[in-house]
Amino acid sequence: MPKLLLVAFEGFELLDAFGPLELLLLAGYSVTIAAPTNGVVRGGVVGSEACKSEAAKLEVRSCVPVVASHSLVEALSQKWDLLLVPGGQGTRALVGDEPFLATLALLCDASAAVASVCTGSALLAAAGVLDGRKATTNKRGWAWVTESSKRAATVEWTPRARWVADRTGGKLCATSSGVAAGLDMAVWLASDLLGAGVGEAAAKRAEYVPSTDPADDPFAALVK
Amino acid sequence: MPKLLLVAFEGFELLDAFGPLELLLLAGYSVTIAAPTNGVVRGGVVGSEACKSEAAKLEVRSCVPVVASHSLVEALSQKWDLLLVPGGQGTRALVGDEPFLATLALLCDASAAVASVCTGSALLAAAGVLDGRKATTNKRGWAWVTESSKRAATVEWTPRARWVADRTGGKLCATSSGVAAGLDMAVWLASDLLGAGVGEAAAKRAEYVPSTDPADDPFAALVK
Repeated sequence: MPKLLLVAFEGFELLDAFGPLELLLLAGYSVTIAAPTNGVVRGGVVGSEACKSEAAKLEVRSCVPVVASHSLVEALSQKWDLLLVPGGQGTRALVGDEPFLATLALLCDASAAVASVCTGSALLAAAGVLDGRKATTNKRGWAWVTESSKRAATVEWTPRARWVADRTGGKLCATSSGVAAGLDMAVWLASDLLGAGVGEAAAKRAEYVPSTDPADDPFAALVK
Repeated sequence: MPKLLLVAFEGFELLDAFGPLELLLLAGYSVTIAAPTNGVVRGGVVGSEACKSEAAKLEVRSCVPVVASHSLVEALSQKWDLLLVPGGQGTRALVGDEPFLATLALLCDASAAVASVCTGSALLAAAGVLDGRKATTNKRGWAWVTESSKRAATVEWTPRARWVADRTGGKLCATSSGVAAGLDMAVWLASDLLGAGVGEAAAKRAEYVPSTDPADDPFAALVK
């Protein structure tokens, strides 16, 4: 069974992680959840206008406690077939967290393929994983992601893309647009990595109609 | 902030719960997670053909430990604006669990509106919540759900439906088809319960293109 590592952190976006995970598990992956520290980490959603402050957003809207079985450092003792990095409110703090980024870079080295959803690409960029690569991200958070770190400036950001697959150096690095785009990327990933039709069969099992054209991006106009 | 109760249990389907939850949280709900016993409960995916036995399916594929802050009985001390019941492998055991079903029926009484995703409708049916109502469910599990309990025979099951909204007795009871159909139902629910356009705004925020016609069911042909 191919091994998927989900990188979880405080304030990860729920559907960023569990949408792709549903489809990738149906496609045949097993999953291990790792976080900066093992134990409970809370997923949630990006703050709504109802929330007054950044702090309140993170506090109020991070509300699904998930148990990570491994710390990120502990996860370094294994090889992974696929590493998945969600986005979410929590990326704001982590994009400047050097120990986190250094460990993430090592985990990406230890993974045959790497994928991110939404603002998860800001973390991959800051960790140097996207140096010189093509990538995309959440459309509403475009300005923040593309300016979130010095290394983000070296990425070839693609504004009109549901997802982007880059194979520079022979290693697949796939990045998706906002939240739900991760579902479509996961269907494509499963078929690319596990065999033709595997992703589509998983989507059918989940009664999901995937978008199959990575250039068909209904939300590209949100980029500012 | 309107209050959503997520009914979690061992072997709940990941996207059944976290797809609608993403959209409903973005729409303005707060969430409380309750399970038969509070503490850790594992979500996963329905077994794949790769799994040898029913036991192995449940063991191997239930792999995301989530912390429930309340037991279902504890959740009875509050009123809820919306109760959400996911489906998944775990419904097989619970559909014959009388204490669980009795508590679920009381929780539904204490909730202004009730919704289920996928085989979650088998639990609502067995608890008597769908007596004489129209409902739908997962297409691949159709035969099992519609025959899963004596009370399921009193439900007016609708095979061609992405979701079904029934308002018998003045109370909204919405049931969706398989896994990903819960996303579309959630968009509709948010607009119906919180105000016109609220669900669509949440979907846009999540870069999700919802299906808006409940009768447009691409998976109806899977019903046997």
